[in-house]
Amino acid sequence: MIASPGRRILAEFLGGALLTAVVVGSGIAAQHLSPADIGLQLLENALATALGLVVLILVFGPVSGAHLNPVVSLVDALLGHRPWGDLIGYLPAQIVGCSAGAVLANLMFGEPAVGLSTTDRASWPHLLAEVVATAGLVLVIFGLARTGRGALAAPAVGAYIGAAYFFTSSTSFANPAIAIGRMFSDTFAGIAPSSVAPYIAAELVGGALGWLVVRVLFPVTAGPKP
Amino acid sequence: MIASPGRRILAEFLGGALLTAVVVGSGIAAQHLSPADIGLQLLENALATALGLVVLILVFGPVSGAHLNPVVSLVDALLGHRPWGDLIGYLPAQIVGCSAGAVLANLMFGEPAVGLSTTDRASWPHLLAEVVATAGLVLVIFGLARTGRGALAAPAVGAYIGAAYFFTSSTSFANPAIAIGRMFSDTFAGIAPSSVAPYIAAELVGGALGWLVVRVLFPVTAGPKP
Amino acid sequence: MIASPGRRILAEFLGGALLTAVVVGSGIAAQHLSPADIGLQLLENALATALGLVVLILVFGPVSGAHLNPVVSLVDALLGHRPWGDLIGYLPAQIVGCSAGAVLANLMFGEPAVGLSTTDRASWPHLLAEVVATAGLVLVIFGLARTGRGALAAPAVGAYIGAAYFFTSSTSFANPAIAIGRMFSDTFAGIAPSSVAPYIAAELVGGALGWLVVRVLFPVTAGPKP
Amino acid sequence: MIASPGRRILAEFLGGALLTAVVVGSGIAAQHLSPADIGLQLLENALATALGLVVLILVFGPVSGAHLNPVVSLVDALLGHRPWGDLIGYLPAQIVGCSAGAVLANLMFGEPAVGLSTTDRASWPHLLAEVVATAGLVLVIFGLARTGRGALAAPAVGAYIGAAYFFTSSTSFANPAIAIGRMFSDTFAGIAPSSVAPYIAAELVGGALGWLVVRVLFPVTAGPKP
Repeated sequence: MIASPGRRILAEFLGGALLTAVVVGSGIAAQHLSPADIGLQLLENALATALGLVVLILVFGPVSGAHLNPVVSLVDALLGHRPWGDLIGYLPAQIVGCSAGAVLANLMFGEPAVGLSTTDRASWPHLLAEVVATAGLVLVIFGLARTGRGALAAPAVGAYIGAAYFFTSSTSFANPAIAIGRMFSDTFAGIAPSSVAPYIAAELVGGALGWLVVRVLFPVTAGPKP
Repeated sequence: MIASPGRRILAEFLGGALLTAVVVGSGIAAQHLSPADIGLQLLENALATALGLVVLILVFGPVSGAHLNPVVSLVDALLGHRPWGDLIGYLPAQIVGCSAGAVLANLMFGEPAVGLSTTDRASWPHLLAEVVATAGLVLVIFGLARTGRGALAAPAVGAYIGAAYFFTSSTSFANPAIAIGRMFSDTFAGIAPSSVAPYIAAELVGGALGWLVVRVLFPVTAGPKP
Repeated sequence: MIASPGRRILAEFLGGALLTAVVVGSGIAAQHLSPADIGLQLLENALATALGLVVLILVFGPVSGAHLNPVVSLVDALLGHRPWGDLIGYLPAQIVGCSAGAVLANLMFGEPAVGLSTTDRASWPHLLAEVVATAGLVLVIFGLARTGRGALAAPAVGAYIGAAYFFTSSTSFANPAIAIGRMFSDTFAGIAPSSVAPYIAAELVGGALGWLVVRVLFPVTAGPKP
Repeated sequence: MIASPGRRILAEFLGGALLTAVVVGSGIAAQHLSPADIGLQLLENALATALGLVVLILVFGPVSGAHLNPVVSLVDALLGHRPWGDLIGYLPAQIVGCSAGAVLANLMFGEPAVGLSTTDRASWPHLLAEVVATAGLVLVIFGLARTGRGALAAPAVGAYIGAAYFFTSSTSFANPAIAIGRMFSDTFAGIAPSSVAPYIAAELVGGALGWLVVRVLFPVTAGPKP
C-alpha cells in the first residue's frame, strides 16, 4: 500500500506520540508502583516499551514505514531507500508527535500537562552508550531490510530496544525525537533539557557508525524494501 | 472455516470466560504471592494476560473471530466487515462469558464464588486512559485486518494489552464485557460497580475515536478479512 | 519426517526429561535467588518453563509430536490422530523421562539425586484449577491441529503454560507425567506423593472436558495434522 | 546471500562483541539497579540476553551463520555443514570479539576498561550444568537445521538461553568464546580466569553429547541448511 503524503505524516505523528506515551506512561506507572527497586521499574518500563514498539511498527509500517525516529529516516535517505524530500514532513511530525505523547502520558497519570524534566543524563559513558545503541538500531533495521526481511523489523526492533534498556547505561534512547519529547515530563523517563543536545549528537554519531557497518556487511540489496 | 452461529456464540462465551479467568485469576495469584510490591503484582498480571490473550485469539479466532469484546464487535460491524445481526448473539455471550470467568477464577482460588469489588477506579485521568487504550486496541486490530495481516492479530493484541497494563493509568480494561465481569471479584483485578458505567462510556468513546483513525489511515481494504 | 518408533520413544523420553529439568531446575534457582518474594520466584519459574517448552516442542515435534504428556497422547488417540498402540511406548517414556529430569535438575543444583517432595498440593480449588488447566491445554493443542495450524503449537503451548502458572491456583501441572516426576525433588516445584493421584485424576477429567470442547468447536479436521 | 570471507569474519567478531556487551552490560545494570534480589538481577540479565541474542542471530545469520560460539562452529564442521577451514577465521574472531564486547560494556558503564573477574564458578554441579546447557544448545540449533527450519534458530536460541539462565545452576554460558570474554569484567556476569578452562572443557563435552543426540534423532538432512 502506498499511502498519501498526508497519511504518512499523520502516521509518523501518531506513531511517535503513542511510542512516547508508552515510554513515559509506563515509566510513571513503574515509578509509582515499584518504589523500592529501580531495576524492577526499568524492567516494567522496558517490557512495556518493547511490546508497544512491536505493535506500533506493525500498525504504522505499511503507512509510513514506521520510522518514528529521525536517525532512521536520515539513514533511509542516505542509503537511497527514500527520497530526501520525505524528511521535510517526517522529521517535524516525529518531533511534534513525541512531544505530544509525553503530554498525553502526563495527563493520563494526573501529572501536570507539561513539566520540564530535571534528570541530568549526560556523561561520557552514557554518551558512548547512546552511540552504541543507535548504531545497533540502524544495523538491525537496515540489516533486515537489505536482506529482504523487512517484515521482521517490528519484532526485531522491539526485542532490540527491550534488551538495550538494560545493556546500555543510558537505557537506550537512540532516537532524537523521543529525546526531545521526554524533556517534557518530569518523571521516571524524563531527560533534562541540558542533556538533550549531547544525546542527539551521540545518536547522530551512532547513526553514522551504523550506516557504515550496514554498507560494509550488507553491500547489496536483496528482496523487497522495508 | 465458517462455523455455525451456535458454535460462534459458544466460542465468544468460552473465550470471554477464559480471558476473564486469566485476568482475575492471575491478579489473585499476584496479590497473594507478591504482597510487597504492586508493580510486581501488575507485571505478573500483565504477562499472564498478554500470553493468555494471544492463545485465546489464536484458538477461537477461526471459529468466531475471537472478539471477546463488544467494542471490537461494534467497530467490526460499523466497518462493514460483519452483519449487524451478529451482535445480537455476540454481545450477550461476551458479557455473560466474562462474568462466568470471574466466578471461575474466584472458585479456583478458594474465594467466594461471587464478590462485588470495592475498588473504585473512576477518575478523569483513568477515563482518559480508557479512551486511549480502547482507541489503540481498535487501531491495532483493524489496522492489521485492513492491510491483509489479520493473522498477526493474536500476538499483536497480546503485546498491545501487555504494554497497556503499564502505559495507561487505568491498566487498560478497553473492553466493556470484561469491565462488567471484573465487577464480580473483590480482588486485585476487580472494579467497583459504580465505576463500570464511566469505564464503558470511555471505552465507547475510545472505540469511536479508533474507528475514525482507522478510516483515515487505512481507507482501503487489502487482502483477506481477519 | 516419519521417525522410527525407537527414535520417537527416545524423543518423548528426552523431551520429558528436559522439560522437567527446566521446571524443577528453574524452581530451585528461583527459590535460592529470590528468597523474599514467592511471586517473583514463580515468575522466574514460569518464564523459564514457557521459553523452554516452546523450544522443546519445536525441536522434538518433528520426531515424536512432542507430546511429553500422557493426556495429550490419550486425546490424540481418542481423536483418531494416532494409533492407540503408540501409547504403549509413549506413556512409559514420558513418565520415566520426567522422573529422570527431576533427578538431573537435583544434580545440577547440588541437591540429593532423589528427594521426595513434602509439598502437599491437593485441595478442592487446586483440583478445579488442574481440571481447567488441562482442558485448556487440550483445547489449545487440538484447536490448532484441527484448523491446520499445528505449526503454531510450540509458541502457543509455551504461552499458555506461562499464563497458567499464574491464572490457576495449582500453577498448572496439567500433565500426569510431570506430576509424577516432580514428586522426586523436595524443592520449589515438588509435589508430595500423596497429592499426585488426585492431581492425575483432575488432569484426566480436564483432558476429557477439553476433548469434548474440541469435538464441539472443531468438528471437522482441516489441513495437515500436528 | 553468500558473504565474502572477510565479511563473515567481521560478522562473527561484531556479533560476538555485541553479544558479550549485552550479557555483561545488562549484568552490570541489573547489579546496580536491583541490589536487593539476585534473582531479579538474573531475570533482567536473562531477558536482555535472550532478546539481544534473537536480534543478533537474525542480523548476522545471513552473513556468517551467526554462530558467535566455537562449539557451534565445531559441530557445524563435524556434521559436514561447513568446511573445517572456516574455523581458522571464525574461532579467533569469536574469541577476540567476545573479549572486546566485555571491554565495551565496561566502558559504557564507567567501569575500568579491563578488570579480571574474581567470581569463582567451577564446581561439579556447575560443570554438569554446562554440559547439559551446551548439549541442549547444539540440539536446538542442529535439530532445527536438519529439519529445514533453520529460520527459526534465532527465536529458538534466544528462548533456550533465556530459560537456561535459570534452569542450569551455571546460568548457562554454553560458549567458550564468551567464557573467555566474561573473564575481562569484574562484575555480575564475570568469571574468574581459573574457572574458564573447566567451563570450556565441560562445554566441549556438552557439544560432543549434543552432536551424538543430533546424529541419533535427526539422521537425515531435510530442507535447506541454516
